[in-house]
Amino acid sequence: MGLSEFALIDRYFRKCGVRRTDVRVGVGDDAALLEPQAGGELVAAIDTLVAGVHFPHGSPPASIGHRALAVNLSDLAAMGARPSWALLALTLPNVDEAWLSEFAAGFSALAYAHDVALVGGDTTSGPLCVTVQILGHVPRSEGLLRSGARPGDLVFVSGTPGDAAAGLAVEQGRLNAPDEGATYLRKRFLFPAPRMALGERLRSYASACIDVSDGLLGDVGKLAQASGCGVELSYAEVPISDALVQAVGDARARELALTGGDDYELCFTVRPQNVGRLQQDLPPERWGYSLIGVVREAPGAVVMSGGNVMEFSHCGYDHFASSLS
Amino acid sequence: MGLSEFALIDRYFRKCGVRRTDVRVGVGDDAALLEPQAGGELVAAIDTLVAGVHFPHGSPPASIGHRALAVNLSDLAAMGARPSWALLALTLPNVDEAWLSEFAAGFSALAYAHDVALVGGDTTSGPLCVTVQILGHVPRSEGLLRSGARPGDLVFVSGTPGDAAAGLAVEQGRLNAPDEGATYLRKRFLFPAPRMALGERLRSYASACIDVSDGLLGDVGKLAQASGCGVELSYAEVPISDALVQAVGDARARELALTGGDDYELCFTVRPQNVGRLQQDLPPERWGYSLIGVVREAPGAVVMSGGNVMEFSHCGYDHFASSLS
Repeated sequence: MGLSEFALIDRYFRKCGVRRTDVRVGVGDDAALLEPQAGGELVAAIDTLVAGVHFPHGSPPASIGHRALAVNLSDLAAMGARPSWALLALTLPNVDEAWLSEFAAGFSALAYAHDVALVGGDTTSGPLCVTVQILGHVPRSEGLLRSGARPGDLVFVSGTPGDAAAGLAVEQGRLNAPDEGATYLRKRFLFPAPRMALGERLRSYASACIDVSDGLLGDVGKLAQASGCGVELSYAEVPISDALVQAVGDARARELALTGGDDYELCFTVRPQNVGRLQQDLPPERWGYSLIGVVREAPGAVVMSGGNVMEFSHCGYDHFASSLS
Repeated sequence: MGLSEFALIDRYFRKCGVRRTDVRVGVGDDAALLEPQAGGELVAAIDTLVAGVHFPHGSPPASIGHRALAVNLSDLAAMGARPSWALLALTLPNVDEAWLSEFAAGFSALAYAHDVALVGGDTTSGPLCVTVQILGHVPRSEGLLRSGARPGDLVFVSGTPGDAAAGLAVEQGRLNAPDEGATYLRKRFLFPAPRMALGERLRSYASACIDVSDGLLGDVGKLAQASGCGVELSYAEVPISDALVQAVGDARARELALTGGDDYELCFTVRPQNVGRLQQDLPPERWGYSLIGVVREAPGAVVMSGGNVMEFSHCGYDHFASSLS
């Protein structure tokens, strides 16, 4: 790409996302100058999407822009944080204005929804790859960690995991689903909705939290490991959407819910004495979360059905890495 | 890559860089929790290095790790900022422990030198690509911008630009240089030294600053444009190293100094009335910078030699993008 092409690209991102008064210098200088919130801790995460690995080649550019920001926002939701600023590193094989315009629109729409300003970036020439770095704030010492769970805590998950994995399969032509269901499942993969409002509110109730990006079973296992304990999930309680059941049947739906990736839901634990308050203040039917298990002392993450431990051959992202490559 | 391979990689980066007391949660949770400095502005930059574009395929991994951090540090130096934390997004085609170990060592050595903690990251599978995001601080309203130059300000550059471009050519076998010179030039490309100490000190003297990454002439042009003016550089005053002159001769050395990339030097402007104080407090021979021109009203960046305007066919990174691809 020539210099003028880089300049062209920069123009697409100079006005991306919201304007914020805490941005003193945004896109256009060597670095951004930002005013962190007094009394808050800064929360920072970075995530990369690689073409052919995290999304199929030829994915809708608006979806790639949306997802690049969404996966980072989801990390902040899992900390109970509120996002402020993002930086975008975009590697492109060539300059396609229509593609750029749609990518920027997808990124910007989600940035607007969550009050995020794009404050910096870098555009380079190479195989398609998008890295977003997100910055936000959380009140001092109130950030939710993976490591706060204790045996006896109850385990919850938001939404209906597994949809996105099925949506990816629909997108790739590996799965047929009824029209309406296919649209729903595809949207769950292409335009995941990070649980920002729930994450912030969970600061008052949850003992630990993680975002479900690599598969519920694997991710809850990471939470348990970070907390020095284990978890026991109830197969029957794993929430699954009607669309997913219609597309793949009950058993495969539950398997996808446990091992599929790209959900960007929140999995969190709550001390038993706080569950009543949680369910009263944040009614599960309104906030869309389900009780799925309990934290135990013995390490590992197991799924129980009728008193038996169920075996799963996959417990995370690996599965979908191979199906995409 | 399988999950266990990602875990392996994570291990290399869990203890990378220094430990800092302002890191409450570093690598290992969904996001990092950091304590920003009271009374300071946060400074944030992001930069990507793509294999085959920003460094030759097969480059020493320690150099790739060093450069990925150095190019970001240099952005902070140009703002007059002091670095605190970095996040690393690493895309790898395969897992090679020897490569990873050297990459991490290169990154970590530079992080130690500048008191930077690695607080988060993401490792993905794909074509080799490294994105680093750097965070630092600058006292409120003291950050150096590109836009502060005024006609009459004097223009300076640190070090001897052009060395890195020649070093890359040596590295690629496109240029032969005497042994000692070759070693020096290669090092200037492979292990650039970002001008952190100079950048911080320049806050008290400079009216504008930019880091020279895409070629001096192009970058000083960006500074001038951001300031709404132009610059006139003196061909004879452009600093060039003895090694560069020995390798390519005087004329080609000056051309490389003006149009070569990857220097990571600082180009800055100073009001005439502050030049005496600058040169007294920061002696040029000790701090290694040179007076190369003046800011003027007419837009553009021109190079003058004996009263004539010199023409250059390249003025920035473009040149080296094509020579690498």
